[in-house]
Amino acid sequence: MTVNPSQTRLPQPVYRPPFNTTRASHVVHRVTDLSASRDFYTEVVGLVVSDEDPNTVFLRGMEEACHHSLVLKATSEAPAVECVGMRVLTEEDLDALVDFFKRAELPAEFVEAPYQGRTVRVRDPVGTPVEFCASMEARPRLLFEFDRYVGGSALRLDHYQILTPKVSEALAFYMSFGFRLSEYMVAADDSVMGVFLQRKGNPHDIVFFDGPGPRLHHIAYTCGESQRLLYACDIAAQLGFGENIERGPARHGPAFAMFVYLRDPDGHRVELFTAHYQTIDIDDAPVRWQRGDQRLTRIWAPPPPRSWIEEASQFLGVAVESELARSEGA
Amino acid sequence: MTVNPSQTRLPQPVYRPPFNTTRASHVVHRVTDLSASRDFYTEVVGLVVSDEDPNTVFLRGMEEACHHSLVLKATSEAPAVECVGMRVLTEEDLDALVDFFKRAELPAEFVEAPYQGRTVRVRDPVGTPVEFCASMEARPRLLFEFDRYVGGSALRLDHYQILTPKVSEALAFYMSFGFRLSEYMVAADDSVMGVFLQRKGNPHDIVFFDGPGPRLHHIAYTCGESQRLLYACDIAAQLGFGENIERGPARHGPAFAMFVYLRDPDGHRVELFTAHYQTIDIDDAPVRWQRGDQRLTRIWAPPPPRSWIEEASQFLGVAVESELARSEGA
Amino acid sequence: MTVNPSQTRLPQPVYRPPFNTTRASHVVHRVTDLSASRDFYTEVVGLVVSDEDPNTVFLRGMEEACHHSLVLKATSEAPAVECVGMRVLTEEDLDALVDFFKRAELPAEFVEAPYQGRTVRVRDPVGTPVEFCASMEARPRLLFEFDRYVGGSALRLDHYQILTPKVSEALAFYMSFGFRLSEYMVAADDSVMGVFLQRKGNPHDIVFFDGPGPRLHHIAYTCGESQRLLYACDIAAQLGFGENIERGPARHGPAFAMFVYLRDPDGHRVELFTAHYQTIDIDDAPVRWQRGDQRLTRIWAPPPPRSWIEEASQFLGVAVESELARSEGA
Amino acid sequence: MTVNPSQTRLPQPVYRPPFNTTRASHVVHRVTDLSASRDFYTEVVGLVVSDEDPNTVFLRGMEEACHHSLVLKATSEAPAVECVGMRVLTEEDLDALVDFFKRAELPAEFVEAPYQGRTVRVRDPVGTPVEFCASMEARPRLLFEFDRYVGGSALRLDHYQILTPKVSEALAFYMSFGFRLSEYMVAADDSVMGVFLQRKGNPHDIVFFDGPGPRLHHIAYTCGESQRLLYACDIAAQLGFGENIERGPARHGPAFAMFVYLRDPDGHRVELFTAHYQTIDIDDAPVRWQRGDQRLTRIWAPPPPRSWIEEASQFLGVAVESELARSEGA
Repeated sequence: MTVNPSQTRLPQPVYRPPFNTTRASHVVHRVTDLSASRDFYTEVVGLVVSDEDPNTVFLRGMEEACHHSLVLKATSEAPAVECVGMRVLTEEDLDALVDFFKRAELPAEFVEAPYQGRTVRVRDPVGTPVEFCASMEARPRLLFEFDRYVGGSALRLDHYQILTPKVSEALAFYMSFGFRLSEYMVAADDSVMGVFLQRKGNPHDIVFFDGPGPRLHHIAYTCGESQRLLYACDIAAQLGFGENIERGPARHGPAFAMFVYLRDPDGHRVELFTAHYQTIDIDDAPVRWQRGDQRLTRIWAPPPPRSWIEEASQFLGVAVESELARSEGA
Repeated sequence: MTVNPSQTRLPQPVYRPPFNTTRASHVVHRVTDLSASRDFYTEVVGLVVSDEDPNTVFLRGMEEACHHSLVLKATSEAPAVECVGMRVLTEEDLDALVDFFKRAELPAEFVEAPYQGRTVRVRDPVGTPVEFCASMEARPRLLFEFDRYVGGSALRLDHYQILTPKVSEALAFYMSFGFRLSEYMVAADDSVMGVFLQRKGNPHDIVFFDGPGPRLHHIAYTCGESQRLLYACDIAAQLGFGENIERGPARHGPAFAMFVYLRDPDGHRVELFTAHYQTIDIDDAPVRWQRGDQRLTRIWAPPPPRSWIEEASQFLGVAVESELARSEGA
Repeated sequence: MTVNPSQTRLPQPVYRPPFNTTRASHVVHRVTDLSASRDFYTEVVGLVVSDEDPNTVFLRGMEEACHHSLVLKATSEAPAVECVGMRVLTEEDLDALVDFFKRAELPAEFVEAPYQGRTVRVRDPVGTPVEFCASMEARPRLLFEFDRYVGGSALRLDHYQILTPKVSEALAFYMSFGFRLSEYMVAADDSVMGVFLQRKGNPHDIVFFDGPGPRLHHIAYTCGESQRLLYACDIAAQLGFGENIERGPARHGPAFAMFVYLRDPDGHRVELFTAHYQTIDIDDAPVRWQRGDQRLTRIWAPPPPRSWIEEASQFLGVAVESELARSEGA
Repeated sequence: MTVNPSQTRLPQPVYRPPFNTTRASHVVHRVTDLSASRDFYTEVVGLVVSDEDPNTVFLRGMEEACHHSLVLKATSEAPAVECVGMRVLTEEDLDALVDFFKRAELPAEFVEAPYQGRTVRVRDPVGTPVEFCASMEARPRLLFEFDRYVGGSALRLDHYQILTPKVSEALAFYMSFGFRLSEYMVAADDSVMGVFLQRKGNPHDIVFFDGPGPRLHHIAYTCGESQRLLYACDIAAQLGFGENIERGPARHGPAFAMFVYLRDPDGHRVELFTAHYQTIDIDDAPVRWQRGDQRLTRIWAPPPPRSWIEEASQFLGVAVESELARSEGA
């Protein structure tokens, strides 16, 4: 009789978590040419500007009622990512979150974040700076403003992917406060190489994949129709961003969607994809992918370019730990 | 100084509900010609058969991992709807639900339902028979089985709409155990005529609209891409169901989607639509529509035919209360 | 043994015509509010302005290399159509055309038409004013100007439809100089009610259908992808032209395309459709449709509204002959 | 004052050709595994079988009324292409064609070709075996058979591309009997490297590009909607033909279309593309592309793989002349 060791290694889901995290919410990028980045995100990706000043642009997708899902801040230094952000449901959840992080002996402090309610900045155990808030100023959804559909007409931020040499630690930590595992990849030795974690009922809010980190591999906006991915590429090429189309359009294995990856003028990666399946029921067992399974990195498409595998954005002021460090540490 | 009376009339949302209802889950139809209905739902709508016997067909959408979202039962009597169904997250939630209904002095009893875990059948205050369960047998998602994409390739059940002369009672009741109001329609006198209620983070799991009832106006499957709605119509026409296209394809006002309504061979109505926006944050104030607002029934499209306004499916053994009764009762 | 009388009534095709007519080319509309019409055609239909002055707007589709396919002229009188236009291949063809019309004792005179080469204005036997030229100023195709894709992004003028009580006369005349019949409709008594005539190798350049005339029923632009028809409707509704969507989107019987009919601010009708099949070989027998055949007016769609059946644009200064006149004349 | 030497080198168009060639019509492939090839073309490309026997499969596109546009013949030898085929309008044109080739001292002989009328097999000056006929058995167009839309749902054969070291000779020859040049590519020294030649009014029926030849680089079917290209890829991957997706989906420079190239089980290449622009008027000057112009090989897409640049199908019994031979011959 054999046991499947990979099954036993997965943490147990927590259905009554200590606080209610609801969804991936926003990302803050430092960019070296604010105007070029603004053009890229508004013309190619199709985001709209909620507010801006000479040093900052706040952007949201066509369907988003929240003030921003992407913040661009001008920097005279290297491009970087300040933080990724999540929502909790209520202010009480935010207080419970602070307690939770303090008990876990992880940094958690209140910060000022324009257009957001009370905001807590934490560091997760793999070093990712994550910002949580329970409220943000509301703005009209622009779904009906059809003449403002531009390029990919990105609808809403869906998820982001972090590279880290400590995927298992990230998995255990996020599941301990209620994240659920939808899909995961294992290496030949059955160690977990990648995890899709979610709160909002589709495959991912936050993804961790093995690699030197913490680094932000990409953020992802859903566009709804595959037509819009093609149109984003058409516009990208026309506006001189043709070389910024890094991978796709093609079809993903995990999570199924049609996708295209673009690099913004600073190299921050953004994925546009069609839509994801719903996963809410506790009957939905996590989907397991064996590394090397051809379906993993592609259903169809040329193999990802080297840049897609190796390059990612650094978090501001956060040291990158290499995989070597990991094995030495083990 | 004026107050907006409609605001005050809306119940307060409950963010920590007594049990965790997660989503609209399934519907059970009685049909007079099982074979004709099976053809309609598999060829035009694009559902797949999970299991069947001479008297019953269990169907699910292309992305559904649950055993069924639509059950067709043969009847030699009039077509009818046995119940609509919802999921709660865990078995503990199901027990808490039974307590809740008992305290509310509403019927709630355990019933046998094939392929489902423990199942409770209730009657809500407006008479709708609703079935709740926490688990159902799992089946593979068929998203990658591209050669099984047929007709509308319906992906998953999204919601259903109930007609009732007691919309406000339904609203108050469902919100009391955690449903959130995403959009609503008011009459000229500011009384609530229709409500979109949700648990899963998009505009609706269950909708109540004013009319003699309880009756089931329609069930709705999401198809993802608008192309599939057009193709469903092409296939419907080719297979002799051209007359069953009742309304659309066109663009909705509330909830934004591209839609088409079809009638099955017994007249049960099914909506295919593209996709819905996400609504999770407590900042998302319910969208208010004034009756007569042209955007309400259509963004563009010819006006709905009389049949769409007047006809709906009766629930098995449930008397229909007319609007007259309502006003007399008032 | 029976013969099919309808077959014998069709004129024989002429494969080596006296001159080479190549395609439907352009239409000249008189409009009462030039600015409103310009908005409609540029924003909803998606045409681009090649040139304009205070009284005239010259428009072309996104793929057209010719200067204009639609000319709008301001009028202070009733809206009307000045003429429909066709291309012949060379200047020699134009001279041969003049000879041909003179021999047929039909009016044909050279006129001034801006941006066009030598231009001949004729009247066909059913009274339609038709303009022919062999050349027009060239403009860049805008296929790659993806940020100029607007509304329906109409690609090119494909055909126009004329109402006349004398369909058979039109058929015989146009076929005598090389038009080929792709599809036709017959009444219960086998008389020809409608004909699709073509030179460019798809089902129609010019269509004649039975009705008081000559009147212009519609002009038609091809948009390529069905997505663009839906988007044209979205934009129409948003810009206040929602009521101008007269019929569709739906699927045609004859010629197969997905279509939508819109009315411009003066009531001139424009069809947007996806694309047509190729018909070049002499083996391609004309497709015969029996009136009342449900496939004729729709594959799927609600029946056309009364306005679509009855209303059409008058040609400037051309008397409309009624069907009554026809039967009296017979 | 400078002259543009490339302009002077282009042959003059012939508007009244000696016979009326109408369009690219069909291709005959020798394949080593008839069953595997049949599966590929019916399931992935979406062609339908008009007739078949144990050694031959005759295929046509969903909209084609002709019996076949692709013939697959089983061979126990190496895969090869027997010929490409074209249509002339009438039997008289076919006789005039034979005269024309005899005067040009090029081989032209009548051959038996099933389901075709009188058929002439010629060799053009660069060695390509081309078959001409004026008629072929008719079959119903399947445009309305929506449940037979499979994979790419290829609508019709549009064109094919030949590699040859003698592009200029091919250009001069085909233009001498009426082909028109729509687009062409020149090398740094202004020599013509590639030509798009057409008779049917869109950019190409036959294309010649520089390379060892004559070899067939690809045949191309139009699919209408970009959605179908994506779906063809989905189906290809699912049926185990994922590796056969050689290039794309992406956007072409010349001729504008969205495309994908696939290899059949013997390596014969087939392009699926959306649609092409219309080019009929003599005002339409040929589009000139400079080699190295990035727009030439792609508007957006990764660069073509080596296989796409180097590999092509040999014509049965026709020696391949290398570019070396060309320069030595010069």
